[in-house]
Amino acid sequence: MKISEKNIERLLLYRRILCGLRSENVENIYSHQLARIADTTPEQVRRDIMSIGYSGSSVKGYNIIRLIESIGEFTDARETQRVTIVGAGNLGRALIDYFQGRRRKLFIAAIFDNDPQKIDRVIHGVRCYSVEQMKEVIQKNNIDVAILCVPAAAAQQVAELLIEAGIKGILNYAPVKLSLPSHIYVENRDMLLAVEKVAFFSRQH
Amino acid sequence: MKISEKNIERLLLYRRILCGLRSENVENIYSHQLARIADTTPEQVRRDIMSIGYSGSSVKGYNIIRLIESIGEFTDARETQRVTIVGAGNLGRALIDYFQGRRRKLFIAAIFDNDPQKIDRVIHGVRCYSVEQMKEVIQKNNIDVAILCVPAAAAQQVAELLIEAGIKGILNYAPVKLSLPSHIYVENRDMLLAVEKVAFFSRQH
Repeated sequence: MKISEKNIERLLLYRRILCGLRSENVENIYSHQLARIADTTPEQVRRDIMSIGYSGSSVKGYNIIRLIESIGEFTDARETQRVTIVGAGNLGRALIDYFQGRRRKLFIAAIFDNDPQKIDRVIHGVRCYSVEQMKEVIQKNNIDVAILCVPAAAAQQVAELLIEAGIKGILNYAPVKLSLPSHIYVENRDMLLAVEKVAFFSRQH
Repeated sequence: MKISEKNIERLLLYRRILCGLRSENVENIYSHQLARIADTTPEQVRRDIMSIGYSGSSVKGYNIIRLIESIGEFTDARETQRVTIVGAGNLGRALIDYFQGRRRKLFIAAIFDNDPQKIDRVIHGVRCYSVEQMKEVIQKNNIDVAILCVPAAAAQQVAELLIEAGIKGILNYAPVKLSLPSHIYVENRDMLLAVEKVAFFSRQH
């Protein structure tokens, strides 16, 4: 089945919302309630959820636990998927902190840096390796996703090393456009652009 | 003029690309070249740039320095706009590091935290205040944009305090939906959802 980026973004957002409701012991939810929290329409919610083969009851709505499972079956890897962070600065450390243990099927297996002070240390539970060890560590640990937290000037070169080592998807926090083969999935998250956007719209309101 | 979020995102991205080219002493660029780097179409580039009242030469393309200025005149505040970061953890510190001095018209004026160890300290050049001082500091410094780097459980309450203090736009890194008045502009950046999305598409490629 062909699924769009927007489609998967919404499903992952629904899951985050549903997990929050589950922790408050809510059992069921109607499409119009989920739509309101997710800033979308009830029709969109029903289409998205139908697309993963789940359906609710028109009387009780969706069962939250089962819907969380269905979204996971669709979006998550069968086995745990391994992730690496490149760049053990503040952002890299923030990501480990924020991330580790939140998702059963995603696991940060290694971090890379070129600072000798950081190499071979364990940072928030994750071992830091030198960039020279990248290929070996990525292949040995079956890592296929990388989060790029390096300065702009280093990003393209590091991305090429990651791909050589077998990485299939990159979440790029470096403020630079990467030129990579089309079979590599890249998601760009420039934090400065995000602040600039909010600054612009905060003046319009 | 009515401008969409996508429109402003593209203009800010063009500017980032153009600033990179300027630092390599490139003087002019054609719409098809800019489109290729920005992953869009030449028609879209021309429409976006026409919408801010700038036009290039069909022979030489756009003059890069003047186009950077034109985008700035459209997207930036006339006077410097002040920003605050709430939460002086790794992410807050990463943002200061990354941000400070990059944009003439945007300035991080204060950081807030509730950890007594951090309050009254200067972190990467920015003073950290207690949450109790929020209203006073935000009003005195004319801050209208906030970046929320607090845990999910604290985010809604902190956002309400920020709005009470006069904040108009929030960049929300906490993994939670905020319920705020509609005149407040909110941009959500859940880092875990971003990793999950990349993990999904890295398996499809």
